[in-house]
This record gives sequence, C-alpha cells and structure tokens, in this order.
Amino acid sequence: MIKIKLPDGAVKEYQAGVSGLDIARDISEGLARNVLGAKVNGEVWDATRPITTDADVTLLTWTDEEGKSTFWHSSAHLMAEALEALYPGIKLGIGPPIETGFYYDIDFGEHTISSDDFEKIEAKMLELARQKNEYIRKEIAKSDAIEYFEEKGDEYKLDLIDGLNDGEITFYEQGDFVDLCRGPHIPHTGFIKAVKLMNVAGAYWRGDEKNKMLTRIYGVTFPKAKELKEYLHLLEEAKKRDHRKVGKELELFTFSEKVGQGLPLWLPKGTVLRERLEQFLRKAQVKAGYQPVVTPHIGGKQLYVTSGHYEKYGSDSFQPIKTPHEDEEFLLKPMNCPHHCEIYASRPRSYKELPVRFAEFGTVYRYEQSGELHGLTRVRGFTQDDAHIFCRPDQVKEEFVKVIDLVMYVFESLGFDDYTAQVSLRDPENKQKYIGDDELWERAEREIQEAAAEKELKTVVEYGEAAFYGPKLDFMVKDALGRKWQLGTIQVDYQLPQRFELEYIGADNQRHRPVMIHRAPFGSLERFVAILIENTGGNFPLWLAPEQFAILPISEKYHAFADELAGKLEVNDIRGSVDHRDEKIGRKIRDAEVQKVPYMLIVGEKEQETQSVSVRKKGEGDLGSMPVEEFITHFKEQVKAYV
Amino acid sequence: MIKIKLPDGAVKEYQAGVSGLDIARDISEGLARNVLGAKVNGEVWDATRPITTDADVTLLTWTDEEGKSTFWHSSAHLMAEALEALYPGIKLGIGPPIETGFYYDIDFGEHTISSDDFEKIEAKMLELARQKNEYIRKEIAKSDAIEYFEEKGDEYKLDLIDGLNDGEITFYEQGDFVDLCRGPHIPHTGFIKAVKLMNVAGAYWRGDEKNKMLTRIYGVTFPKAKELKEYLHLLEEAKKRDHRKVGKELELFTFSEKVGQGLPLWLPKGTVLRERLEQFLRKAQVKAGYQPVVTPHIGGKQLYVTSGHYEKYGSDSFQPIKTPHEDEEFLLKPMNCPHHCEIYASRPRSYKELPVRFAEFGTVYRYEQSGELHGLTRVRGFTQDDAHIFCRPDQVKEEFVKVIDLVMYVFESLGFDDYTAQVSLRDPENKQKYIGDDELWERAEREIQEAAAEKELKTVVEYGEAAFYGPKLDFMVKDALGRKWQLGTIQVDYQLPQRFELEYIGADNQRHRPVMIHRAPFGSLERFVAILIENTGGNFPLWLAPEQFAILPISEKYHAFADELAGKLEVNDIRGSVDHRDEKIGRKIRDAEVQKVPYMLIVGEKEQETQSVSVRKKGEGDLGSMPVEEFITHFKEQVKAYV
Repeated sequence: MIKIKLPDGAVKEYQAGVSGLDIARDISEGLARNVLGAKVNGEVWDATRPITTDADVTLLTWTDEEGKSTFWHSSAHLMAEALEALYPGIKLGIGPPIETGFYYDIDFGEHTISSDDFEKIEAKMLELARQKNEYIRKEIAKSDAIEYFEEKGDEYKLDLIDGLNDGEITFYEQGDFVDLCRGPHIPHTGFIKAVKLMNVAGAYWRGDEKNKMLTRIYGVTFPKAKELKEYLHLLEEAKKRDHRKVGKELELFTFSEKVGQGLPLWLPKGTVLRERLEQFLRKAQVKAGYQPVVTPHIGGKQLYVTSGHYEKYGSDSFQPIKTPHEDEEFLLKPMNCPHHCEIYASRPRSYKELPVRFAEFGTVYRYEQSGELHGLTRVRGFTQDDAHIFCRPDQVKEEFVKVIDLVMYVFESLGFDDYTAQVSLRDPENKQKYIGDDELWERAEREIQEAAAEKELKTVVEYGEAAFYGPKLDFMVKDALGRKWQLGTIQVDYQLPQRFELEYIGADNQRHRPVMIHRAPFGSLERFVAILIENTGGNFPLWLAPEQFAILPISEKYHAFADELAGKLEVNDIRGSVDHRDEKIGRKIRDAEVQKVPYMLIVGEKEQETQSVSVRKKGEGDLGSMPVEEFITHFKEQVKAYV
Repeated sequence: MIKIKLPDGAVKEYQAGVSGLDIARDISEGLARNVLGAKVNGEVWDATRPITTDADVTLLTWTDEEGKSTFWHSSAHLMAEALEALYPGIKLGIGPPIETGFYYDIDFGEHTISSDDFEKIEAKMLELARQKNEYIRKEIAKSDAIEYFEEKGDEYKLDLIDGLNDGEITFYEQGDFVDLCRGPHIPHTGFIKAVKLMNVAGAYWRGDEKNKMLTRIYGVTFPKAKELKEYLHLLEEAKKRDHRKVGKELELFTFSEKVGQGLPLWLPKGTVLRERLEQFLRKAQVKAGYQPVVTPHIGGKQLYVTSGHYEKYGSDSFQPIKTPHEDEEFLLKPMNCPHHCEIYASRPRSYKELPVRFAEFGTVYRYEQSGELHGLTRVRGFTQDDAHIFCRPDQVKEEFVKVIDLVMYVFESLGFDDYTAQVSLRDPENKQKYIGDDELWERAEREIQEAAAEKELKTVVEYGEAAFYGPKLDFMVKDALGRKWQLGTIQVDYQLPQRFELEYIGADNQRHRPVMIHRAPFGSLERFVAILIENTGGNFPLWLAPEQFAILPISEKYHAFADELAGKLEVNDIRGSVDHRDEKIGRKIRDAEVQKVPYMLIVGEKEQETQSVSVRKKGEGDLGSMPVEEFITHFKEQVKAYV
C-alpha cells in the first residue's frame, strides 16, 4: 500500500501501481471522465501511469494549464496520425503544445499542403478520436528506437534520438501511430471532441535556416464542441479589438519608418488618453505620499558602472553615446532606478524621513530585435509609471501593503477586476545565488506574503523565481476576453542600495542601509494602453475617453450655437469637438459611433431656442433633451471619482 | 553745407565738418554734456569726429547700448593710462568693452597684480578722469605705427598691427597715453565719474595656450557715482537670487557627477513647480486649439537625413547611437520638429483642417562643452514647451497674432510685464541666401510686423537676422533687477515642409505645401525656471509655489489636528506639509520663511477647538485667525485664474 496525498491535504491509501485515473475514478466517475493527467510529486504524468511509491498527487483537468497542455500535446499526435493516414510516407519533426493549441513540423515530401486541406484533415482527426485509442507509454532501448525509425526512414526522429541517452527514451502509441515522445498524454483520443486547424507555415528543422524547411501546421482542440465555438468567437473578437487596429481607427498612435520601428508617435487623441492616465495615477500617488521627480533620458557611463548595468550591457543593446571627449560617454537609460538612487544620495537622510518615495513617468529605451516588436506591447521606447521607495527594513511590509492598495485601486478604476498575483521567492535549495542578508530575505519574503494575505489577494507562490537582488510580487489581470496579461510589479531590491552605497542615519545615530522597492502599477503606459484598448475594444471609461462628446449640429445654421456650447463644456473640463461637416445627421451619428464617442449632443432649432441638447449616449441610446447646465451636472456626476 | 537727418526725421543743414558733439550742442547744452558718440549712417563714430557729407545721425548717450559700449571702451584706455603711470614698462594686449564693463589684457613684466592693488588703480583712474583729457583720433601710416611700438617695445601691439593694412590704422590719444585703436571714443575722460575694478584673471595672448599668459583686469565705470552704487547693489541682489544658490536652498534641482554635467535632476519641489508650469501652459494651449502629442527622444538616421540635420551633425555633438544592426542607427533628438513633421505626414490633410497645431513638452539633448554649462540656463538636456503649427500661407498672420497673444498671456501671468520683441528679417541685399519663395517671404515678413503692431508690441527690426529657412520674432524680458533675458520665440519655416514633402489638398483639389511655424513661449522649462527664480528670488507666485502652505503645530499635541488639516487642504488641491519637528514655534516660522512658503498656518489649542487656523502670509504678516473653510475660500480666490 502507498499513501497518496491530495491537494486538499487528505491522505488516502492505495495499492502500489494505482494510477491518477484510478484515483479519479475513486473520487467520482465525472472526474474520471475529465482527468487529463496527474501531477505526481511535482511532475506531470500520464493519468494512466502506475504510481508505485508514496506521493503528492494533483489530478489535472481542462481547467489546469498543465492539463490543457497535455491535451494539446496528445492532439498533436492525433493530427500526426491523421496526416500519416492521409499522406503515407511523410516524415515527422516535432509536435509540441503551445499557448493556444499545438503544431507539428512535417516533411510532406512531394505533397503540398494548404488550408484547403484542413477540412479533410480535421475530419480524419475526429474519426480517429472517436475510436478512443489509448495513448500507451513504452520505455525503449536507444538501439531499438533507432532501428524503428531507420526502418520507417524518418531522419528527423533519428536526429532527435541522436541527442538522447539510452534509458531516457520513450515511445507513445495510439491506434496505428507511434511517436518518439517524452509524454505525458491524455488517457485516450476520445477526449478530443472538437478540432480546428488554424494555419500552415514554413519552419526550418531545428530553427536553423541551413536545414530543410518543413511544413508547420497549427491546430487547436477542445474537449467540448461548444468550447471551440467560444474560442473561435473569442478570436474574432480579439481581432476586432486588436490594439493596432483600434489604435489606427481611433487615431491614437502611429509609427513612422523614419523615426524607427518600435518607437510610437502618440497622436493627439492617444496623448490625451495617456495624459489622463498619468494624471489619474499622479493624483493617487500624491495621496499615497509619493514625491514626483524628473530625470534625464541618458546617464553617464559611471552611473551604469555603479549600477552594474554597464558590465551587463551587451552587443544586443543600444550602444553607448560617444561625445567629443573620450571620457564622456552616455547611455540611453534602460531604467530609472540609478537616477533615483542619485537623487536619494544627493543629501544625507535621516530614519525619520523614511520612507522616501520618488515617482517618475520615466521614458526608457531598450533595444529589441525588430522581429519581436509588436504594436504597443513590445516596443523600443516606453514610459514606465515608475517609483522607487527607499525605506527601513522594518517598513517593507507596510510599504508592500500600501503599494498593493494602490495597484488594486488602479486596476479596479480601470475595469480590471479579475486579477491574481504571483509571489516570486528564492530557490530554498540555492540560497547562495541571491545577494543580501539571509535574515532580511526571510523577513521580506514572509512579509510580502503577509501583506498579500492581508489584502486577500489571490496569489501563487513560485520558488526560485525571485530576482537575484530580491523577492517580488507580479500582478496578472484577465481582460474582457478572458486573456491573461502581466501588468504591475512590486520588487524588493537589496543590491542597488549597496552598489550606490545609500545610507540613512538611524535612531542609534549610526549609518544604515535602506531597502529599495521598485514598483509600477501600469508597468508601462504603452503596454497598459494596448491592454486597455483590447479590454474595452476602444470603448474607454468616460473619464478616459479622448473625445467625451461630439456636438452634431443638424445643419450649418446651428454651427455658432454648437461652437458656443463646445466652449462651455471645455471650460468645465469636458473634452470633445463639433462636427462641422456638411453631412446628414444620420451620417454624423454613425461616424461618432465608429469613433466610440460616449456622448453625442445633437443640436438644432429647438435646442438653440431652449439652450438645451439632445443627448445620445453610446450603449444606452437616446437620453432625451436636457438644458446644457443639466447635461454638465449629469456628466460631472459620472467622472467625479477620477477628476 | 551738408544735410543731417536726425532720428525723429528732422533734417538740419550744417557746415561740412560739423561733429556729433556740435549737433548736440546745437540742440541743448544738457545733451552735449551727455553725448558719448554719434551713429553716422549706421556706423558708430567719435562724437567729435567731423562729418563731411549728408548723413543720418543718431546721437548716442548712456541709455544706448552703443553709447555704453563706447564709454566702457574709453574706460579701458583710461585704465591702461593709469596702469602705465603706476607700472612703467608694462606692455598692452587688447582692451575691449564687454557686456558689463571692460577689460584689458596686460603683460606686467615682473609686477604681480592682485585685487589689493585695485584701490590704488581706481584712484589713479579718477585722478586722470578729472583732467578731462580729450580722446584724439589719428590716422597713421602702418610704418609709423610699427616704428612707434617698436620704440616702445610692445610686441603685442606689433602683433596686432601685423594683421592690419596700411590706411586702416588709427591711434587714439588721451593725456600721455597712446593706443592702437579703431575707436570710437567718448569726447574726454571727464565723462567717467565712477570706477570699480571687479576681478583679475589670467588670459593667454590671442586665447592660445601656446602663447604667454597675460593678466586680465575687469572693470566697470559709470557717468554718475550713484549708478555705480546701484550697480553694486544689483550685483549683490543678483548673487542672492542666483538660481543655482536658490535652487539648492529650496531643494528644487540638483546635479550628479555620475549622471553627468548639464543634466539636471529635478527634486520633488522643483518637479512640482515644473509640472505646474506645464499644466498652466497645457491648459492655455488647449484653449488656443493646440493638440498634444508625445514622441520618442531618439529618431532614426533617416529622419535626420531628411531634416538635413544629419548632414550638419558635427563631431561636436552627441554621436549616433549604434545598434546590433548596421542599418539601424539612432540620434538623440536635438529638436522635436522632425518628429512632428512625421505626425503631420501620417495621413492626408485637407485645407479645411488647417491650421494643425501639435504641442509637446519635448525633452531634447544637445552636447555643450563642459566649460559652457551653467546651472539651468546652459544645459545638455532640456524640455522645450514646443509646438509646430502647420498652416496655409494665408493663415500665417492670424497664427502669429494668436501666438503673440499666448506668449503675452504667459509672460504677464508670470510677472514679466516688461518685454520687447525682435523681428528678424532677411538681408535685403542678399536674398539668395534664403530658401523659400520670394513672394511668401515678403508676405510673411510684412504680416509678422503687422501682427506685432496689432498687438502693440515694442519691437526692434533686425535685417539679415532671419534664419535661412524663415523670418522670426524673439521675445526679450526684463527681470526684477532690470536684466534682459531672451525667452520665447516664434519662427516661420519654409524648409522642413519641403524636406519632408508635406502637403495638403487645397480647395482647388490640388496638392499644396503648408507653412510651418515653430514656437515656444518659455523657450525651455529649465531656462525659464532659472529666470523665474532669479526674477522672484524664489518667492514664486502663489499658484506656482511648490509648497503653498506650512502647517506649524505649536506642540506635538496638535499634530493630529495638523495632519487632518493638511489632508483637507490637499483634497482642495492646496499643496504643503506639516512641520512635525520638535522645535519652538519661532524656529518653525523662521524656517518656513527661509523656504519662502507663502502661507504659514499656526495651530494650537484655540485653533483646534474652533477648527480654525492662525494665518501668516509671507510679505504681509499676520492675517489673524480664520475658520479652515474660510481659509480655503480665501486661498482659492487667489489662484483661481491659474487652476
């Protein structure tokens, strides 16, 4: 008998050789129908693989990332099986799961595959899935593995086997299909109920352009047909909300070849949005005791020698800026912290004035390969909503609590109410990798977790994920389409205060070293705006909308009244414009809707006479006519929390 | 007889050979006593030099820059005369007037001169001045000049003569002193009534360190003793108001060796000041129809090839930023205009939407020699309150009027009510030097002057001072000490629209080229803040003050009330802090005064009971006690124009 400990802490006894599937069945038939794998002592196994010793076991289903990943890995095998059936003689490369499904790289020989063939392949996959063929794991000697693939004539698998040792080779079989594979896999193909091939592309074997180009087919599968439908709908939605598309339609930002890739130019409407976000956070930060600072976008070589950055500065980065004087060399700043350290060090500090919190909307520059650039989410220049807190070691917890409060306030104000946090701690087996006093680390790690618990954050703890200079807390938000994004971060740093020899005079009149906390609720304004666009589809909260109103005169006769009205609203800090075009009112309304303007104010004869406006609110429709003053009050009521 | 035309347009007839001094005497004896020189057909002459042809004549006095300059030039000769009398055998280099007085470079041989000798020299100068020795101009043959200085043994003058042609050499004599000099000079030494030597320093002959180092003595003189006294007082005041000193005392900004010279780090209080200035201008600009944009601090090589900047990029500048890819090379942006051109060009433009006005608080970087850096007035990185107006040629005048309005609003809001403007036009003799259509130039030059006249600006017109790409208007302000500073600028540009091939579709459906106007009311935030500090001595207008109030509890018992009060004020957007120190109230008041905090709010027993504050206003003293709400109303009343 062996002892199996489940995630809820319950320990059950089973016969040695019991499988995850058996345990699931023991719990409920429903669970057994859904179990995709088993995490055994931290390692993901086939649900059907016998467990022979005492173990911690977590049963994995579709809702677990690892369950999903196993499902898609098995689906790659299913696709390969279908392809072999349809195109005999093909040779297989690799077929891994990815974030949104799986792919397989295949040498189709004389065949050419296009998306026209997808339907046929999908049908074959579903046919094979219905056979409920089990995925069977087999340990195999290297020589046998070689013999098998030599016979089959698959040089790619032979190339893979070449890199493996005897004793670590396994095959997986389902139906007539055999693959070299480490696994794990789902119990049988019958779990796969819905299949969609997404895309076909070329891919060099092992990613090396000197090798042959194989055909990569991307696919995605689901345990329920409904889920595929939802997924495809989500994709459609995501496409519509793509921030690059919406950013162009709403004229928020642009790029210029001459200025350079990955260097966004913020158009007027995007700038207003950005400035409103900054203003919102600036205000929240003043309330939270932050002090604003401004520092240059370059720094002398010596600054980065001190911070340790110069040493790490690789040939993959923006190179140093030379000057007529050899001893004067500058770097574009890739981060704001060294500058803030210099401000801290610009005069002596007393324990009484700590914590000191320096905040800056600091634009930093980091060179990225052009192939990795993507809209506003992956750029070469971006503005961090950065701040550095310099505090005493006994203030770390309180500061963490305050920063968590601020981050939560920001997320909730912007409609991200589904967020989790990851606590990244030291690898307990490998403490010498980290700089800073052991006691300080233990205290900070404990206190970060206490702070997160106090704030009732949903957290995941990851050991070994801390930076070498300190533990951290990262926030993930889910957007309206259920997609996860990494946003704000809070990070303890023991290293920079040491490198910059920062000090404060303690109550004991001795010199002490402060602890530094880096934090950024948005992360970067660029990335945050991108996520905000994709979350809202461009329908920004009223207080953020670049154009809050559009005044639509029904004819030129009312332009003067419209302009006067716009002036009145502007004085009340309500942003918008008048549509002076010689167009029908219906067209003006449609265009304002496309531009996602929250309030359309229609003015004609009656409105001019009574000094009123006909109000249409996006998403709510006609609100009827109201006096101008009433509209202003109505409007202000809705944005007052953010002004 | 010859005809003399005076500046008021009057034309008088005189005998040929009449001098400026004669003409002055003809007008009034008072004028004759004050005339320092005469501008004859645009050239400054000795007041005593005979005029032999018809001429435009302006008589120069102490209030004219050129009069002052002549006075100081003559004073340099007077000092040299005194020095020769006191230190026989010295050799003279050059002795020009400068902005604030004059200097003379002298080879003192075996003598060593220090400021201890100044009193003696000053006394000698005044003694010689009282002799009312005339400055006598003599044209002299080169050979005679050489003979004279060979005899005297002055190799410096010989070196100077070496570079001159026969026929262009003049000597000036006063008393026993003779100097090689082009002049002009004042009538006699008796005009000089007050003398102050300021400083002694070393200076290489001809500025070349391979030559001998001479002794440079700086001095200043005045036609009235009272003026010297006022000047010395002004110097004292200027020293107290030096923005580097005040900036440090009020903790507005700092510099760091590691970050680099000329790269200011803005401390929290300075940042608040900066942000308030930005916010103030941002608001005024929104009202004036500007659209905010944000662009990166670097630009690709191609951007600057297009703008023409790359070509001119010298070895004296920040060098290009290389990247791992040879074809990707960036420059730190020295100006924002190329980026704004790219934004303009990012989509087609119609004549209907012009003018388009893009505004950005854009931080730019320009390499300056370290010896030329000075506090915030000469830096290597600064933020321009930049904007570029793209308009049709027929809109230039209206846009100029609007920009002048904005600049005047800014200056007057900030207490600079004494300003003038310089209109810089083409050199009419040399039109081919300038790019752009001749008709456009003529129209713009006329319209700029019309706009300035409409706004009743005091203007000076300077021909030949336009940039090669367009005419401009520069503003000069006088600060509280009467010193002149160059601030805002408005500049027409025909070149960049051409280089960037900017276009709009006109009413005629054809492509047209827009005109571009650069403008910056502050010029740069750094320089503007420096001038603001020196103008106010750190006593900023209430709406700008980084700390608007200091709450001073009379003992620790009232800290809680003080904190609560601070929170109330903060909610009302009133900035300040509580003095929590364990100090006597007298000390707290003194420190708040040193920090130039406008409002001191003293709280104790009575104030707590009645929810009121005892108000002391800087410069006005005790305003008595008032309920908190009343104070808030009182405060808001004073800043409402700027919020």
